[in-house]
Amino acid sequence: MPTHPEPRTAAALVIGNELLTGKVEDVNVSALAQALFPIGIRLRRVIFCPDEVETIRQDLDHLRRHHDLVFTSGGVGPTHDDVTVEAVAAAFGRPLVTSEEIRRLLEEVFGDRLTKSYLRMAQVPEGTRLVTSPRHRWPTVRVENVFILPGLPEIFRRKLPLIQEHLDIGHRFVSKAVGTRRDEGELAPLLGRLATEHPEVSIGSYPRWGDGPVRVRVTFDATEEESVDRALLAFRSAIGEEDLIPEGESEP
Amino acid sequence: MPTHPEPRTAAALVIGNELLTGKVEDVNVSALAQALFPIGIRLRRVIFCPDEVETIRQDLDHLRRHHDLVFTSGGVGPTHDDVTVEAVAAAFGRPLVTSEEIRRLLEEVFGDRLTKSYLRMAQVPEGTRLVTSPRHRWPTVRVENVFILPGLPEIFRRKLPLIQEHLDIGHRFVSKAVGTRRDEGELAPLLGRLATEHPEVSIGSYPRWGDGPVRVRVTFDATEEESVDRALLAFRSAIGEEDLIPEGESEP
Repeated sequence: MPTHPEPRTAAALVIGNELLTGKVEDVNVSALAQALFPIGIRLRRVIFCPDEVETIRQDLDHLRRHHDLVFTSGGVGPTHDDVTVEAVAAAFGRPLVTSEEIRRLLEEVFGDRLTKSYLRMAQVPEGTRLVTSPRHRWPTVRVENVFILPGLPEIFRRKLPLIQEHLDIGHRFVSKAVGTRRDEGELAPLLGRLATEHPEVSIGSYPRWGDGPVRVRVTFDATEEESVDRALLAFRSAIGEEDLIPEGESEP
Repeated sequence: MPTHPEPRTAAALVIGNELLTGKVEDVNVSALAQALFPIGIRLRRVIFCPDEVETIRQDLDHLRRHHDLVFTSGGVGPTHDDVTVEAVAAAFGRPLVTSEEIRRLLEEVFGDRLTKSYLRMAQVPEGTRLVTSPRHRWPTVRVENVFILPGLPEIFRRKLPLIQEHLDIGHRFVSKAVGTRRDEGELAPLLGRLATEHPEVSIGSYPRWGDGPVRVRVTFDATEEESVDRALLAFRSAIGEEDLIPEGESEP
């Protein structure tokens, strides 16, 4: 059994002028990150870009070559500013073809309201794989290592259990956290030393704003729970219990 | 008077493992986007990257060469995972030096609690400019076209009025929006035509999830209000008032 499997890497390409002009606040990145972390996939990079075929194509081409998995968010509807699928096809140098399966689903969903514009949504890059499961009938489009997800947060979020099921190969990341009454300036030397002594653990230090008892939240991430526990114990021992605030006892 | 000044471009580099592991949801990008849009600065690109000097250096070096302005968020505290300033210095090939002004401010703020770790926060790349104003005493660090901003949302947001004041040269973007009862499949041909007929206007189409009266929100952005109004009027005339829901009358 490999005890320290090399984690798969991932990137996200978040597409939409609305995010870059401040009309909409992205919530998909954190939902994706929360879905990938527990199944041991390391999200290394996120790019937000505008609704431009050539920009998306270039970004995607680079991301897909440098990461095991890529997830796009947005730009998959029926209007002129929905250009993601066209850009994915261009990034892989493939033509667009009609997916008969998606066309049938669109016919079922839209019935009489199925316009030519909606039918554009059945266009996929050649060689696309449709990922489904018994519990997720509407397919997610996968082209090699790229998953094309919708931007609407309510639908994006519904896709994630399917993605997890599809990509879970038993790898895990573990994270534990503790709050402290100390401030970052006091903690810094200790955290620096622990980061050196526990290279397999990623230690994060996040100051809190406001008047709550927690001044800094310290997190310990690793692929093995034992590693997390070792670093956490070393931290707890060094700080002393009176200055620690276990998660759940502090303000939210 | 130039009626269509070429908008300045901007990019943001958002630094932090906590965002990529889903521990924290970013709110700084939308705050920055909302600050830049009204002063006519086009945010073209956002990258989220981990707390790694070499990754930040490379990203920053690329972004600063391809955009008029770059804003970093995060990684500026006193702990081992705060490596942004070091990476900015590396991107510009400059040494770190102590800013006497920041050191004096740190002494005032922290007094007896001023540790050696906090003093790291007075280190800046050589040639740094400290941006201040009578109403914003704590300086924002600017290195050529790069602004180094803190990641903590409460502090990030407080920096934005100063940034706006500092960068406002009278350029503007204007955005107007209207809701409709029509769905995207019906609207798509009209929106495609308007996008072609009004190339100076960026038209966005955003479906709404849920049961409210607004099925799609349509936005019109341009540097000139007259351009926005022309495109908006063409849209309103084509749709008919009975299917429009002015902003403010719909659900939030």
